[in-house]
Amino acid sequence: MPQFLDTSDPGFETAFAALLTAKREDAPDVDDAVAGIIADVRARGDAAVIELTAKFDRLDLTPETLAFSQDEIDAACARVSPEDRAALELASARIRAYHDRQMPADASWTDDSGATLGWRWSPVGAAGLYVPGGLASYPSSVLMNAIPAQVAGVPRLVVCAPTPDGVANPLVLLAARLSGVDTVYRIGGAQAIAALAYGTETIAPVDKITGPGNAYVAAAKRRVFGRVGIDMIAGPSEILVIADADNDPDWIAVDLLSQAEHDESAQSILITDDATFGQAVAKAVEARLKTLERRAIAGPSWRDFGAVITVRDLAEAAVLSDRIAPEHLELCVADPEALSARITHAGAIFLGAWTPEAIGDYIGGPNHVLPTARSARFSSGLSVMDFVKRTTLARMTPGALRAVGPSAERLARSESLEAHALSVRARLDRLNEAAE
Amino acid sequence: MPQFLDTSDPGFETAFAALLTAKREDAPDVDDAVAGIIADVRARGDAAVIELTAKFDRLDLTPETLAFSQDEIDAACARVSPEDRAALELASARIRAYHDRQMPADASWTDDSGATLGWRWSPVGAAGLYVPGGLASYPSSVLMNAIPAQVAGVPRLVVCAPTPDGVANPLVLLAARLSGVDTVYRIGGAQAIAALAYGTETIAPVDKITGPGNAYVAAAKRRVFGRVGIDMIAGPSEILVIADADNDPDWIAVDLLSQAEHDESAQSILITDDATFGQAVAKAVEARLKTLERRAIAGPSWRDFGAVITVRDLAEAAVLSDRIAPEHLELCVADPEALSARITHAGAIFLGAWTPEAIGDYIGGPNHVLPTARSARFSSGLSVMDFVKRTTLARMTPGALRAVGPSAERLARSESLEAHALSVRARLDRLNEAAE
Repeated sequence: MPQFLDTSDPGFETAFAALLTAKREDAPDVDDAVAGIIADVRARGDAAVIELTAKFDRLDLTPETLAFSQDEIDAACARVSPEDRAALELASARIRAYHDRQMPADASWTDDSGATLGWRWSPVGAAGLYVPGGLASYPSSVLMNAIPAQVAGVPRLVVCAPTPDGVANPLVLLAARLSGVDTVYRIGGAQAIAALAYGTETIAPVDKITGPGNAYVAAAKRRVFGRVGIDMIAGPSEILVIADADNDPDWIAVDLLSQAEHDESAQSILITDDATFGQAVAKAVEARLKTLERRAIAGPSWRDFGAVITVRDLAEAAVLSDRIAPEHLELCVADPEALSARITHAGAIFLGAWTPEAIGDYIGGPNHVLPTARSARFSSGLSVMDFVKRTTLARMTPGALRAVGPSAERLARSESLEAHALSVRARLDRLNEAAE
Repeated sequence: MPQFLDTSDPGFETAFAALLTAKREDAPDVDDAVAGIIADVRARGDAAVIELTAKFDRLDLTPETLAFSQDEIDAACARVSPEDRAALELASARIRAYHDRQMPADASWTDDSGATLGWRWSPVGAAGLYVPGGLASYPSSVLMNAIPAQVAGVPRLVVCAPTPDGVANPLVLLAARLSGVDTVYRIGGAQAIAALAYGTETIAPVDKITGPGNAYVAAAKRRVFGRVGIDMIAGPSEILVIADADNDPDWIAVDLLSQAEHDESAQSILITDDATFGQAVAKAVEARLKTLERRAIAGPSWRDFGAVITVRDLAEAAVLSDRIAPEHLELCVADPEALSARITHAGAIFLGAWTPEAIGDYIGGPNHVLPTARSARFSSGLSVMDFVKRTTLARMTPGALRAVGPSAERLARSESLEAHALSVRARLDRLNEAAE
């Protein structure tokens, strides 16, 4: 059974604090192994990547077959059913429409001193998207990673998608094609991250790496951070549903299970202002678990990490929600906008009972790569912003330099940085000579 | 002597590639020591911070004196000369005016399906700014880190500034006061980063940590990344000046030295289309080095890592600049805007010979915390964006769900995520019942 908490109970604060800090993931310490793999790929390039792929994915590659050929992708795309293709195309169009609005604007202005200031945005030169293999090979993740990069105008976009035993997911390849990916490499793990960061004879290095992965991929991303940009180190998925009694318990139950089925470490929490409704939802979850295909995953997740929290009112729910800082937040209440306005920390908010979180995973438009493990306190979901960077611009005139230069010179001297001061002084002296 | 390269030489490509990849910094491997310090602060809180401060900074603190009192800050601010105060206030006002324009806008719209989509921005809950102690205690860095956070609306803003032997810089305390900092702790090193990330009995944890620091601080930031947000792992400073022959060689020389004086590992590069002018600048650098206060730092930096590159024309200069992806780029040419338009990767561009880079360090308005070590390929300088995060919003209507829900259901099934599909199907079934 999940935990049942009630804010009216004297032990609530202790229990809630424990829920917040519970360690859900026992990630193996693979850092040394990953360091070795990265060093190997840096030293031996393609040969190392090929050996490691044979070892981990039981797949023999050559430099020529590291990437899928266009013919192979054509053939895979042709195997996708028209219905699946249409669904993927609709998702792709809606995700693109949402992200199109995220492109930030350049700026330029002249201030009182006469200085012209501003900034401009430009795309990263190349991006590499990691797509996990096996069961967790999700075409939707290809769209969610690649489309923001494409909208940003990234000139070169590659995917690394391991294909254990050579088995590829045609929908992944179609999703890559729909979102402007140039090349799909059939490699994975730390060796793929190393190849993307440092390059090999065959694989050109990229500037930014995004996408989820296992402990090896996460450790490798942390290690290459700085050499390249990375998106985030993602943890297990989470959902918080705030629901009043005026909901169908079964709808809320399947919503909770839609996170629980991802991973035994996933966490699904219901906050309600009606304890009886909370019990009804828990009962509905048990009923659904009897037949759910992924009950072997969703069951342990719900029982080990799930929680039903009864609050006095929705204001209290908002306060608890900000302490949780959930990745996904569903507001199944009469006035979701009003409740949403009270909440500061959440990756994505789904407003009203007609907006199940799964809509956001596939087709709503917003990105489904979202901050986990309370990191919505300080970070955002994936967006176009992850694939652009800003160059600041400044142009002084002689008049502007005369106005502000002496203060810069003084501050430089106060920091004992004489050459900084001299670089301003040399110009001010010229202006003074000219004025004489 | 610095390196002299010429793109017309047959060996140029090899020499330039070596310049790009030269390892300038031999950061000691302090990762194990830092892991120990972080574990100690997590386990013992204040007691560990106080012991480590006594050990490393030779300063005895108590929980009550970890932070400067308001009286101490008042007294320090009163010791600042009116001229220094005026310079700091002008800098503060100009930096604030620039960053005020960076606040991103919320968005909300209704699409063809009837779905309401959008996002909103909110500040991180608390930010901790690290200000290195000793020689590198820069009040300008306090402004550059704290003002973007203040503009973002961060409700709690703290500074950690070590004071070895108890010596504090009054300008640092005044800069903190001018930029809305709530509390200044006189602690530093990995112990300060650990205290900011995990909190102690006295120091409340923050959500985001920014600011430069030594190898211990950098390693600690990398380790706590994920628990909190961090800005970047900064390396030694760099400047690239592109200058034609129509410049005063001495101006360019002091500009190059203004980076070289930061650090023996700093790098200053001149690209010019006139070899004779390049020689004149090198001569001017040597002349300035004879008397420069920090010649013991600037000299080795220039001789070990400096370079003068002669190019055929400015178009070639732009191509090389993008390969360097400089932190600071000065364009001292007749039409700097035209040259700037050809360049994609740079942290900050200074347009025209009247805009020495030092203006940007102090008073221009743009931020001086900028991507180093070629990371301008994929990252931006510090900005308001580092202190806000985005929550995406979606609200479906029954009609919108009817339009796009079946595709979401299909995609969920294709990914074997049945509960995702059921959460959409449960609602679609209700709509179908209602329609019958």
